[in-house]
Amino acid sequence: MNLVDVPLMKRLLLEVGVERFLSGLTDQIESDFQRWPQFEKCARLATHAPRGVVELMPASDGTTYGFKFVNGHPANTADGKLTVTAFGALADLATGYPLFLCEMTFLTALRTAATSALAARYLARADADCMALLGTGAQGEFQALAFKAVNGVKRVRYYDPDARAMEKFARNLARTDLQLQPVRSVAEAMEGADIVTTATATKARVAVVADEWIRPGMHFNAIGGDCPGKTELTERMLREARVVVEYSPQTRIEGEIQSLGTDFKVTELWEIIAGHAPGRRTAQEITVFDSVGFAIEDFSALRFVSGLLERLGIDARVPLIPQPSDPKDLYGLLLEA
Amino acid sequence: MNLVDVPLMKRLLLEVGVERFLSGLTDQIESDFQRWPQFEKCARLATHAPRGVVELMPASDGTTYGFKFVNGHPANTADGKLTVTAFGALADLATGYPLFLCEMTFLTALRTAATSALAARYLARADADCMALLGTGAQGEFQALAFKAVNGVKRVRYYDPDARAMEKFARNLARTDLQLQPVRSVAEAMEGADIVTTATATKARVAVVADEWIRPGMHFNAIGGDCPGKTELTERMLREARVVVEYSPQTRIEGEIQSLGTDFKVTELWEIIAGHAPGRRTAQEITVFDSVGFAIEDFSALRFVSGLLERLGIDARVPLIPQPSDPKDLYGLLLEA
Repeated sequence: MNLVDVPLMKRLLLEVGVERFLSGLTDQIESDFQRWPQFEKCARLATHAPRGVVELMPASDGTTYGFKFVNGHPANTADGKLTVTAFGALADLATGYPLFLCEMTFLTALRTAATSALAARYLARADADCMALLGTGAQGEFQALAFKAVNGVKRVRYYDPDARAMEKFARNLARTDLQLQPVRSVAEAMEGADIVTTATATKARVAVVADEWIRPGMHFNAIGGDCPGKTELTERMLREARVVVEYSPQTRIEGEIQSLGTDFKVTELWEIIAGHAPGRRTAQEITVFDSVGFAIEDFSALRFVSGLLERLGIDARVPLIPQPSDPKDLYGLLLEA
Repeated sequence: MNLVDVPLMKRLLLEVGVERFLSGLTDQIESDFQRWPQFEKCARLATHAPRGVVELMPASDGTTYGFKFVNGHPANTADGKLTVTAFGALADLATGYPLFLCEMTFLTALRTAATSALAARYLARADADCMALLGTGAQGEFQALAFKAVNGVKRVRYYDPDARAMEKFARNLARTDLQLQPVRSVAEAMEGADIVTTATATKARVAVVADEWIRPGMHFNAIGGDCPGKTELTERMLREARVVVEYSPQTRIEGEIQSLGTDFKVTELWEIIAGHAPGRRTAQEITVFDSVGFAIEDFSALRFVSGLLERLGIDARVPLIPQPSDPKDLYGLLLEA
């Protein structure tokens, strides 16, 4: 069983390059979404605490099983801690043996960005090259780089009420050839943008985007509204747009569409990828990817990193599972020095 | 975050001693069962495969969260593989941060034996010192040692249809001062036994114990019947005995009582431990602990091992969670060499 810890994940990202990593991961998620009906799906198993939530997110394709442990504690940043930390594992369903264990704090940020880029591949205009990024928190750079690598975005107009977060974003991406345009308001960020990514840390139902700033043909990548009581877009805007989600039973509880009722019509992203539903239909259409994160994306991400280890010939084995010579003799293994 | 892998678990067991470990673990489970109502409980989240099942088992006491990944693949032994492998983790609910990651293949065997011993502490006769062990598979030695350490069992009469499994059991326990009495049948094993442990690998509803071998005052520790379609005791015997379970919603599906209907009266072990129900009432009473394993036992086991590390001053840290100096700057952490 291999273990990818934080230093090894950093090494993989530096060796492969963040953009190539994001691009490969996007393709992996795409190919898994193509075979969506093969997966056993369920809503996440959540345990709520006063300050946050911890969740187990399993998924299986009948051959391989994966799960992620992840928390969400918005108040953590006040104590200098991450709001989201995660790790996950793959197991072989034929034997039940765990195969692979992986840090997923970075990997969750990466797969979220890759899934955004994947949705935009089908929903943004083909000539889209300018993105408005509303919120430059922990997701910011990953989103910008995924859209650059996968969707050909060249220009990012970004805004965050926290000036330090904006400086951090600029500093981290200074060496890329993205055109970075810091602006002073959401309205200004949206001027000329083809894609609008909302990735704010609002803890309530806030209209980050006012209806009058929306123009025909825009694609909205709504990342921040991802739990009950936390949304970023207006109901009116959602009702006028074409809304695409990951897994509707989960998004109806956690996503932007949470108050629109169970009869509000949405398309699941996999349906578009598998050819059962159209992607963007016209240059004028306003599209929304209402993303909350789904277990199959984590499954794909774990498989992608596991495959990467293999391809690069990296041995990261840890002895987490005993290997007795006689499977009935677990105790005897203890006595071996 | 600390990681206890298989070599470290072996070291802990050798340093502490298996019997003292089992005894301490029994006390830890007892103290957690005493505060049972504080725990958030749910049935395990199972994914079924043609040859077995993989499960996630979470539990939380409102302060600490624990979960176990575990598989059950009875056919694995034919390929020289373990039927059960597991690992688990603890997290801090206040921050959501994972605290502790641990191998649980050994630990599951240990906590199963400790829970058996804990139940017998309240249900077996105080003068019980002879145990019949039916089935000497991977659980055998752990059961024998837990009953020796916790319940004062001196003599083990053991039977397994697999002669190699019996030899293995004798070899592994040769250096203890348990009186080991190999016998040639279940009936013979039960002669003179005060406690009967059924730990067979029957894959069906089999009567391991015939009614005529049962004598007043016996305590049955039923370990093997632990999933739908897999039982070891007769319905008649169960109806005449006092049946104690871990968590009745789960045991009614998975345990010996699975076909007795939802109105079949059982006592939950925690009720006895917390003083809400009596333990053994008379010397003649026949008692059954219908054990299937419950998430709180894993929670206790993880806390026990985590506490042990601390007490022994063992540093087993692994960098599974990133520690950025600025929690909004996850990407910046990647750029640090």
